[in-house]
Amino acid sequence: MFTPGPVQVPAEVLLAGARPTVHHRSADFPPVLDECQAGLKKVFLTESPVAVLATSGTGAVEAAMISTASPGDTIIVPNAGKFGERWVKVGKVYGLNVIELKDDWGNPTTPERIAEALRAHPEARFVVVPQTETSTGTVSDIKGIAAVTRNTPTLLIVDAVSAFLAEEMRTDEWGVDIVCTSSQKAMMLPPGLGFASVSKRAEAAMASAKCPAFYLDLRAYLKAFSDEGTPFTPAVNLFFSLQEALKMALEEGVEEIWARHQVLARAQRRAMTALGLTMFSKSPSSVLTAVNLPAGVAFKDFNGSLKANGITIAGGQDHLKGKIFRISTLGNHDTFDAVTIVTAVELALRACGWKFTLGTGVGAALEVLSNYAPAPDGWRKADAATKGMG
Amino acid sequence: MFTPGPVQVPAEVLLAGARPTVHHRSADFPPVLDECQAGLKKVFLTESPVAVLATSGTGAVEAAMISTASPGDTIIVPNAGKFGERWVKVGKVYGLNVIELKDDWGNPTTPERIAEALRAHPEARFVVVPQTETSTGTVSDIKGIAAVTRNTPTLLIVDAVSAFLAEEMRTDEWGVDIVCTSSQKAMMLPPGLGFASVSKRAEAAMASAKCPAFYLDLRAYLKAFSDEGTPFTPAVNLFFSLQEALKMALEEGVEEIWARHQVLARAQRRAMTALGLTMFSKSPSSVLTAVNLPAGVAFKDFNGSLKANGITIAGGQDHLKGKIFRISTLGNHDTFDAVTIVTAVELALRACGWKFTLGTGVGAALEVLSNYAPAPDGWRKADAATKGMG
Repeated sequence: MFTPGPVQVPAEVLLAGARPTVHHRSADFPPVLDECQAGLKKVFLTESPVAVLATSGTGAVEAAMISTASPGDTIIVPNAGKFGERWVKVGKVYGLNVIELKDDWGNPTTPERIAEALRAHPEARFVVVPQTETSTGTVSDIKGIAAVTRNTPTLLIVDAVSAFLAEEMRTDEWGVDIVCTSSQKAMMLPPGLGFASVSKRAEAAMASAKCPAFYLDLRAYLKAFSDEGTPFTPAVNLFFSLQEALKMALEEGVEEIWARHQVLARAQRRAMTALGLTMFSKSPSSVLTAVNLPAGVAFKDFNGSLKANGITIAGGQDHLKGKIFRISTLGNHDTFDAVTIVTAVELALRACGWKFTLGTGVGAALEVLSNYAPAPDGWRKADAATKGMG
Repeated sequence: MFTPGPVQVPAEVLLAGARPTVHHRSADFPPVLDECQAGLKKVFLTESPVAVLATSGTGAVEAAMISTASPGDTIIVPNAGKFGERWVKVGKVYGLNVIELKDDWGNPTTPERIAEALRAHPEARFVVVPQTETSTGTVSDIKGIAAVTRNTPTLLIVDAVSAFLAEEMRTDEWGVDIVCTSSQKAMMLPPGLGFASVSKRAEAAMASAKCPAFYLDLRAYLKAFSDEGTPFTPAVNLFFSLQEALKMALEEGVEEIWARHQVLARAQRRAMTALGLTMFSKSPSSVLTAVNLPAGVAFKDFNGSLKANGITIAGGQDHLKGKIFRISTLGNHDTFDAVTIVTAVELALRACGWKFTLGTGVGAALEVLSNYAPAPDGWRKADAATKGMG
């Protein structure tokens, strides 16, 4: 599975989720909650609480938006893809005054664009921006955007749903107010949990926010931390999986996981380039690589060949349907998974009549990957060694 | 575990949830969705679609309420416990004109009370009523209430979160517009899924409903049935568990499951009465039994003794804290589980100094249970044989 979530879930995580269900109000559950909360703070690099909702990632981002704003509030929403578009819709549904920063799909949101929007709308309650726009494989500079927002009264909500743990995210250090993600991405869990870290600033803003919310009201989750634990029945067995996944993530190391995704994505891009293909995004992410389908190669045939080999990837959405394909690095991937996906793409391109020398893509990927030795700091070393390799 | 949800989950269901995660947009998932939808229609006894959300039960009921109403709409909400109270809150959060029918905890909502409210408020958009009020162990006559609402323009939303599969529910035959439940009750799944069946009438009402909703918008789920499957990433592994749980439920038979819960609850009540205890509810449910703690028995000591024997039950909530205890029949329970909980209660009462002859409760329970033979229709026969036994 090389899709941008759900991802392949390690057997340890799946089996942890099959432990006998316990009652969330019994003495058995608080230690699980506590361990998860401590682990989440470590992977989010924050001292703030991280709310865990029984929702998809969309539920978590909607919760962040409506728990911090009141109808009529101005919000700033960059839109250069499916997810930016989604947050525009959510804002409108709740009667927010959405300042939409439209851009071509494939372009990142720049700190400059946010600074400009904030100068025009200093009253904005928040900016909500996808770290990685999954529909186009584009990463935006969240550190730079946070440097703009943190000195204003405007909050920064980051939709890190697909990006989390694959792209660098230093929540507290950068000053990101709310980071949202979900379980089925680089956290390597089955889908069903949404997450939102909440800074002190965001919590203060929630005190006066008036959008209607009950199940998605983050204030209820924050209150529950100092109360019985969770405001609603939590997805107990997914918490067991979360416990295991966090243990694995912390054993590997957060920076190590970022570096691994960076190296794997770079290897994918180098391979695709070597095969004569071009990237769709102007700012390719480490989460997934969106590749333009070359002339004469129909997505249906290309994907059919991949499927015949047991490989699942994603196609383009909306106007990109049939024009791009998207391959992901998310989850438990290593060197051999990177070679697998490049090999599968080579076989599919060959089946579709695209001309190239077999092995060219794999060779290019290995030029990047060979810098990685499976030793402590291996991926980090590789990341440094291959910086600037495109 | 004798709590009113989460319940003990059969190992088959837990292990089904540990199957490798598949991508919800790949060809692997639609057959799972289809099988679940077909099974859900059978257990809901409806021809209408049953939306499956990644939420708790609260999320499903909130979704039903806000997808069918507009701010300012009148709604009728009986409130005689924690959950009635919750739906009052949700209504107010969304600016609905909540006609609250307050009653003492332990009283059921009667069809007469609803008919009277509807005469005063014929403009009401919906009535939302818990089938079983879990905080008090009280069941209301949904068939009778539906007979009132079905001939009016007012919809009936039933919070069957804890009641579903434990109490009789003939969705289409009775004319219930939306039946909500969640996975961790008699469906015997881990928590994390919310369900809502949606009648044609309810769907029509949704066309003009204007409460803000996105993740909890049932229209998105209905639209997805004729589209890609689910509007947001579904909790894939819980669907695997659902597949297994539905298979088990349909093998046992829906009416058989209802009868089993009825017989078990009757056995619990007979046992408690024989021990000299009294029921809290004026209309005891088959989901759980709320028992008044006798004078001189402190909940802390009573529960401590149960815990020492590895038994988890629920206490009273809010003003009933320390005054009642609640034991449930929910899940995979049989004769021997019923004897187990009665035995544990006898031991705990004895430890707390309550005077009675050991075995009295078990004997009384067995008087009910002995009518059950583990044969086809066994529980249904027992149910008929013990009707009127209190």
